[in-house]
Amino acid sequence: MHIILPNEQKIESLPGESILATLRREKVYLVASCGGKGICGKCKVRITHGEADKRSVIRLTEQDLDQGYTLACQTYPKSDVSIEIPEESRLIVGDKIAVGRADDLIKLKEKFGIVLSPLVRRIPLELQHPTLEDNISDLERIKRGLNIEDPDSAERLHVRYGLLRLMPDALRKDNWRVTVTIGTGEIPELLAVHPGSEATAHYGVAVDIGTTTVVLYLVDMVTGKLLDVGSTYNSQMQFGDDVINRIVHATEQGRMKELQQAIRSDINVLLDPLLERHGLTPDDVDSVVIAGNTTMTQLFYGLNPQYIREEPYIPAANSYPEIHAGQVGIRINNGAPIFTVPCVASYVGGDIVAGVVASGMAKREAFSLFMDIGTNGEIVLGNNEMLMTAACSAGPCFEGSGIKCGMRATEGAIEGVEFSSETFIPKLKVVGGVNKPLGICGSGMIDAIGDMFLKGIIDQRGKLQPVSPQVRKGEDGMEIVLYRDEQRDVEVVLTEPDIENILRAKAAIHAGYSVLLNHIGFTMDMIDKIYIAGGFGNYLNIEKAVLLGMLPDVERNKFVFLGNTSIIGSYLCLLSKDIRTEAQEIAAKMTYLELSVSPNFMDEYMSALFLPHTDMSRYPSVEARLSNNKKQK
Amino acid sequence: MHIILPNEQKIESLPGESILATLRREKVYLVASCGGKGICGKCKVRITHGEADKRSVIRLTEQDLDQGYTLACQTYPKSDVSIEIPEESRLIVGDKIAVGRADDLIKLKEKFGIVLSPLVRRIPLELQHPTLEDNISDLERIKRGLNIEDPDSAERLHVRYGLLRLMPDALRKDNWRVTVTIGTGEIPELLAVHPGSEATAHYGVAVDIGTTTVVLYLVDMVTGKLLDVGSTYNSQMQFGDDVINRIVHATEQGRMKELQQAIRSDINVLLDPLLERHGLTPDDVDSVVIAGNTTMTQLFYGLNPQYIREEPYIPAANSYPEIHAGQVGIRINNGAPIFTVPCVASYVGGDIVAGVVASGMAKREAFSLFMDIGTNGEIVLGNNEMLMTAACSAGPCFEGSGIKCGMRATEGAIEGVEFSSETFIPKLKVVGGVNKPLGICGSGMIDAIGDMFLKGIIDQRGKLQPVSPQVRKGEDGMEIVLYRDEQRDVEVVLTEPDIENILRAKAAIHAGYSVLLNHIGFTMDMIDKIYIAGGFGNYLNIEKAVLLGMLPDVERNKFVFLGNTSIIGSYLCLLSKDIRTEAQEIAAKMTYLELSVSPNFMDEYMSALFLPHTDMSRYPSVEARLSNNKKQK
Repeated sequence: MHIILPNEQKIESLPGESILATLRREKVYLVASCGGKGICGKCKVRITHGEADKRSVIRLTEQDLDQGYTLACQTYPKSDVSIEIPEESRLIVGDKIAVGRADDLIKLKEKFGIVLSPLVRRIPLELQHPTLEDNISDLERIKRGLNIEDPDSAERLHVRYGLLRLMPDALRKDNWRVTVTIGTGEIPELLAVHPGSEATAHYGVAVDIGTTTVVLYLVDMVTGKLLDVGSTYNSQMQFGDDVINRIVHATEQGRMKELQQAIRSDINVLLDPLLERHGLTPDDVDSVVIAGNTTMTQLFYGLNPQYIREEPYIPAANSYPEIHAGQVGIRINNGAPIFTVPCVASYVGGDIVAGVVASGMAKREAFSLFMDIGTNGEIVLGNNEMLMTAACSAGPCFEGSGIKCGMRATEGAIEGVEFSSETFIPKLKVVGGVNKPLGICGSGMIDAIGDMFLKGIIDQRGKLQPVSPQVRKGEDGMEIVLYRDEQRDVEVVLTEPDIENILRAKAAIHAGYSVLLNHIGFTMDMIDKIYIAGGFGNYLNIEKAVLLGMLPDVERNKFVFLGNTSIIGSYLCLLSKDIRTEAQEIAAKMTYLELSVSPNFMDEYMSALFLPHTDMSRYPSVEARLSNNKKQK
Repeated sequence: MHIILPNEQKIESLPGESILATLRREKVYLVASCGGKGICGKCKVRITHGEADKRSVIRLTEQDLDQGYTLACQTYPKSDVSIEIPEESRLIVGDKIAVGRADDLIKLKEKFGIVLSPLVRRIPLELQHPTLEDNISDLERIKRGLNIEDPDSAERLHVRYGLLRLMPDALRKDNWRVTVTIGTGEIPELLAVHPGSEATAHYGVAVDIGTTTVVLYLVDMVTGKLLDVGSTYNSQMQFGDDVINRIVHATEQGRMKELQQAIRSDINVLLDPLLERHGLTPDDVDSVVIAGNTTMTQLFYGLNPQYIREEPYIPAANSYPEIHAGQVGIRINNGAPIFTVPCVASYVGGDIVAGVVASGMAKREAFSLFMDIGTNGEIVLGNNEMLMTAACSAGPCFEGSGIKCGMRATEGAIEGVEFSSETFIPKLKVVGGVNKPLGICGSGMIDAIGDMFLKGIIDQRGKLQPVSPQVRKGEDGMEIVLYRDEQRDVEVVLTEPDIENILRAKAAIHAGYSVLLNHIGFTMDMIDKIYIAGGFGNYLNIEKAVLLGMLPDVERNKFVFLGNTSIIGSYLCLLSKDIRTEAQEIAAKMTYLELSVSPNFMDEYMSALFLPHTDMSRYPSVEARLSNNKKQK
């Protein structure tokens, strides 16, 4: 018997093996925070063909059952079965493209002149055995041993309370040879004691808690090298697409614990396969950096996000105390310190601070613009002396949410589209090079809409023109078919509501940076670099993004596409104390401009709802291309 | 209906009121860690007369039931009932003698030149309301407000992780008027935020965790004044009388959690009535100092005490990290820091360090001897430059344990005995002036045995002589009746096994200080002061203790009786940062001498088993009195 995946991969199913177990054996990971007991209901898959024995369906709705959904952990094939794995069930672990960036990250580390200075150090010690004459306490013995290696830490050493319990046995297990883990914060702290004095290998994780996606980097803390990457949908998604809905769920529904549990569980669920793939134990991981927007950060810590949503929009805190993994239920070394990239305001969080760190803009004299196009849009303007920031409610469409066939920039996502000028048949570029598209991601949307506008498939307001049979009436109004495979029963379309959604998002971003520049009396030509961050995967077609009017019409060499800078900035913080200090300084220095009180914002937004913009003088190169196109016709 | 106590106090029992509730109404407090639900089984009383309805007996044994024991919380009188309250069921709260010492403590504070510098400060703040223009986070707003009062703390402020959750609502509850609690440790830490900016009253507790008795001082942290006192049997007693039995219970039986729970629960159970009596809430108490011997301290923290018992007797730690009350389940302000008086070695703990602090010996140039005669005997010898210490296994008899009619020095305890030289009829002194003795405490035992030896009622080996009908054969061998009341069915006797027990204890103490002096080549005449600490209540007859051979035969004005120095030292630590630092320095400076490896210890012990000592030349004044006595006869 076999399990057949949408990309036609065929995996042998062994007798008595659940679908979850079979997929795991082949390193296809599903979200299963309960460990496959049928309790969490997260490992949903859809059986499209074949027969299977469903042992428990209690976590499924009537609708789920009607549509063929089942829990992978409770389902045992009785014949070959074809399955579809919904985005939210999927853990993307060991994503080759992401791991392939390991060398780029090391180059970035070198470019920034980073010397490894992690949140912890592991120091092997061979201690004197106690005797009746030498009968100092276990803790003093450790301090005495440490005094040889590091007198300053030994002198000022604090001890994590929970550790005291484990320390006596750990010391005696390998005959007074131990490896101590020392936190390198303001006050040195003894965080862990492990038997044996050989191993100094240890690992860290950087986590980007996105509203839509959670990304985790596993890093070798001796070399600083990225070992592996995991990502998953933020399972808070079930409680609402955007931060506002999550806040409502936390406050009006009084269910904050669920949101906190969801994000902690996502991190743990990602850790499991990553550790398994590399033969590591949870204890081997002893430092963590997290970055998220302000709401995500507060929810991670279990802080009531109510006042983020209510005017005047006040977060509980922007900088967070260093805590231990054990205190927040992250299943690694209990004493592992967690550094939280500080936030700036209710709608500019640690993800943006991490992004500014990753861009290097806060070290340069020339002025840069930074824009992170994730579930929301945040803009930063500044240089090594001043930083100003604003948030524009761009919505999560570029992360695939709220778009009919939207998906993240993972295997099977259409990330590039070019229409034939004659036939209007689209040529597709698909993430992972797989020829079987499953949906469309943010960069694909920008590409498609930019090109449709250029080729006249949509008008300035984004309305589809009946130029070919690909454009048709669908259930949500007009739509264009980008891909269709009747055999696989897969269709990827862009609908007019999708396009409107995207136009609103790009208008918000455009208005954001326009108001910000205006606010300090700057014009776009005074900007040296424009850094673009966001979950666009590997690729963003700058040209198309200008056509769309999302990016400004400036020399193209000013644009630098950086990808997910929240995770890159977290990774850099994981490596270096200087970078962590820099992140704190950046957060403290950044001035937040509340766009909702800016008189210009609404005007700017309204005039940016057109393609590329109502004021064509802002888009001279686009105007030239369009008129050139017309001439050719 | 009435409840009648052994001291003939008659309390009206209201219909539908349990014995527990009736007693509580009259401020007679019983241990009831479950809050009176019949679960913990600790509020046992014995009904000697009368009828009552017992609603639940599930926590009682057959033997308990046979002897008339019942749970006070589950028992409702049906007639007048006379009850006895066993020692272990009783909370002594508001002990007048102890509270009466409040002024002495303030004098001690002045003598030591102590300026109040508690573990925390409470600072009232009136904060600016946030607006869209002034939209810094809640935490930054607190820091900004604090900056006016205390710029240094504001600058370096850490935040207790658990506090972040409560802070936003606390700020808004009284319209941005708050009182913040700041920990005054190495790094200033925000520990609590309370609505309202008026109240700065706050309270602290000092706790002496004795092996037998737990004593708690409630202190006004604004004035430093002792407000109230509570004490109870350490409910770990049910798992063994001495530390060794507790360690066995924790390790071989694997039931450490029970011991940890027991001591935490004792502290909480004592806190309840103290707070109630003074109209305080748990939040009003925001600092704690605990002192206990090394095993008690480790059990409080839940640390495996196994290696304390195994040669070479190594404690896990001597100094402990500052932790918050919430972390160890003490039911006061969750953020209240707990300072643990540091220990010296496995058998010299924080109680002794506290005692040295209370004695002031570590500030004086002249050499002193300090001896704490509690459940064990510990000796310290030294001055402002050197301190040496040893522990002798004296056993818990002076705290009333292991003695047939032994009890603590609380109401009803015989604390003084003098026999008529002619009739051998004893004249008794009873704690609390009550004329109805219930048992005998440590100082009573010393008094009785010293006097019996002087008057020839016992010989040099402690054997009872048939001098009067008071001396009789009992079930454990010969015994002497000190008190008898047939009506109340109360008899207080001292048996020969009791006397042997006491002789072994005094011999261990004598051997302890003899070996210690010897070790550094000192003789007793080089000692300026001899401080005596222990649970003797108000009173210790020095003369009789010399007759017994427990104390050395030196000028009587060298002796200073200090009482429970563990609680006094803890109290001083609660008041002052300098004293806390001093305690740490004392612990670090003290050298521990392991008596079990001293070749002289056993010899010294054997020759001290006699009254007053085999070598009478050590006791010239006793020899003189004895020969004087003989001459008179």
